[in-house]
Amino acid sequence: MKEPHFAGLRCSRLSEARVAIAGLGLMGGSLAAALRTRHACGRVVGIARRQETANRALARGYVDEATTDLAAGVAGADIVVLAMPVRAILTAVQQIGPQLAPGSLLIDLGSTKAHIAQAMAALPAHVHVCPAHPMCGKEVAGLDAADPDLYAGRVFVISPLARTRPEALRCCEELVRAIGARPLRLDPARHDRLVAVTSHLPYLLALALVSVAEDAATTEPLLWDLAASGFRDTSRLAASDVTMMLDVLLTNPTAIAGALARCRRQLEQVEGFLQAGDEAGLREMMEAAASRRRAWAEPRMGTDGHG
Amino acid sequence: MKEPHFAGLRCSRLSEARVAIAGLGLMGGSLAAALRTRHACGRVVGIARRQETANRALARGYVDEATTDLAAGVAGADIVVLAMPVRAILTAVQQIGPQLAPGSLLIDLGSTKAHIAQAMAALPAHVHVCPAHPMCGKEVAGLDAADPDLYAGRVFVISPLARTRPEALRCCEELVRAIGARPLRLDPARHDRLVAVTSHLPYLLALALVSVAEDAATTEPLLWDLAASGFRDTSRLAASDVTMMLDVLLTNPTAIAGALARCRRQLEQVEGFLQAGDEAGLREMMEAAASRRRAWAEPRMGTDGHG
Repeated sequence: MKEPHFAGLRCSRLSEARVAIAGLGLMGGSLAAALRTRHACGRVVGIARRQETANRALARGYVDEATTDLAAGVAGADIVVLAMPVRAILTAVQQIGPQLAPGSLLIDLGSTKAHIAQAMAALPAHVHVCPAHPMCGKEVAGLDAADPDLYAGRVFVISPLARTRPEALRCCEELVRAIGARPLRLDPARHDRLVAVTSHLPYLLALALVSVAEDAATTEPLLWDLAASGFRDTSRLAASDVTMMLDVLLTNPTAIAGALARCRRQLEQVEGFLQAGDEAGLREMMEAAASRRRAWAEPRMGTDGHG
Repeated sequence: MKEPHFAGLRCSRLSEARVAIAGLGLMGGSLAAALRTRHACGRVVGIARRQETANRALARGYVDEATTDLAAGVAGADIVVLAMPVRAILTAVQQIGPQLAPGSLLIDLGSTKAHIAQAMAALPAHVHVCPAHPMCGKEVAGLDAADPDLYAGRVFVISPLARTRPEALRCCEELVRAIGARPLRLDPARHDRLVAVTSHLPYLLALALVSVAEDAATTEPLLWDLAASGFRDTSRLAASDVTMMLDVLLTNPTAIAGALARCRRQLEQVEGFLQAGDEAGLREMMEAAASRRRAWAEPRMGTDGHG
């Protein structure tokens, strides 16, 4: 297949692009590793907060160059990827966005998109922008958890703005495909509304579950001995990186409030069935959820890595 | 180590006991397979509802004999284990309990204990009784999911009644240890209160999550493409066997209502923090849960099979 040519961008081909990745945690580290492993771009520059992380990324061969200086790291980059918690991305967009070279492409991997899209919309016209969000992760944060195959087979949301030029969008999609992911275009508000249900609500339920257990265990420490695989899986997300999740919650409060309200109604319905001893009602709700969950999981069997 | 001798029971040694297991699903099938694999008892008799299941258990070598006739299957048994949904256990206790041979030991693996303990307390004095509940499972039901190592390393709650004789308790614990599990004595009411938090609440949260997603997806079917590993793990229990879980919910409504009320308070606290933009409050709650979840998971790393 002939490699696409991106007229109007600073780099005309992905294979020749200098890609700067700001943030070498799980997502940024995995992206760097995936690009290098697959020889997808010309050069990968890693930017970490700490020198030690920069050194480790270099030592592992995840990046060609590494620095702790954001401005220096993005200087001369054809594509800049911000792989940090949402509020750190917002700060970085304002800080380095206006300095980016004409024709460069700014992408981010933030977990909520509305605020970031708004910040990117305000950048000078000579910078191409394309917000994005890969649908994968682990509850373990940091470079040590990075994995060149993290994105393989995963949905990778791309939220182009009105100002996003077709060639910028195609370049972003090319990068997504180059690391084995599947691009899915979705506008920022709709993305935020949907992930409030599929991602933020699960986190909050895990948080509530662990908080309830912790509370109950203060008088009954034996409780932890009874927690088995059901508790393990339902509570897993409570161990997520707090800074990342805090930014998610604080930048998507309306959609999250809506998801929580829907969830409260479902729980109230269960409670009502239990109080009334309405076995038929309870069974119907349980059967519907069991069928749905099985139907959803079925085509995913065997691709259960950590997506 | 010398094998314990159980004076007063129908079988004086576990290694010589004829063990009848009523219910050859995940739990009963795994118990049969574990006993046979480990040569822990004299003979295993399997009792299934369907002839096909009985045949399959025989063909796999999980049992020495198999039948679909409950009364015939338990006749002559030294130990009878009821491995069925809670309400099927309640029916079986009343149906076959009074017919059991003098000195025989009746054990159950039901997920809630108060109702079963009450039913067992009413049996004739010549039957030894010992309610129990192993802390393991899978969201996949049935004999095909059975695994001789299902119980290995898992906590196995034993809820002796006031009438449970020391030798019956010791025999039950011997059986638990013989399949590699760890016996933990716990009275029925306390068991039911604790598993309402560690097991029934997680199920209900998964049920609510899938119901919310299903509801939201009716107008936004794209939602399912965005569901990734966080959704997968938090929702896993929604695929649990409905008949089993329905019995659990209907036989533990008070403790479950208590757990749901605690959970509602935690979710309300989160909502309050979000509405007020109280970042410090939110962070404190999230940090506490993350630490707790990590501390709980730490010693369990590597034993993540399906426990």
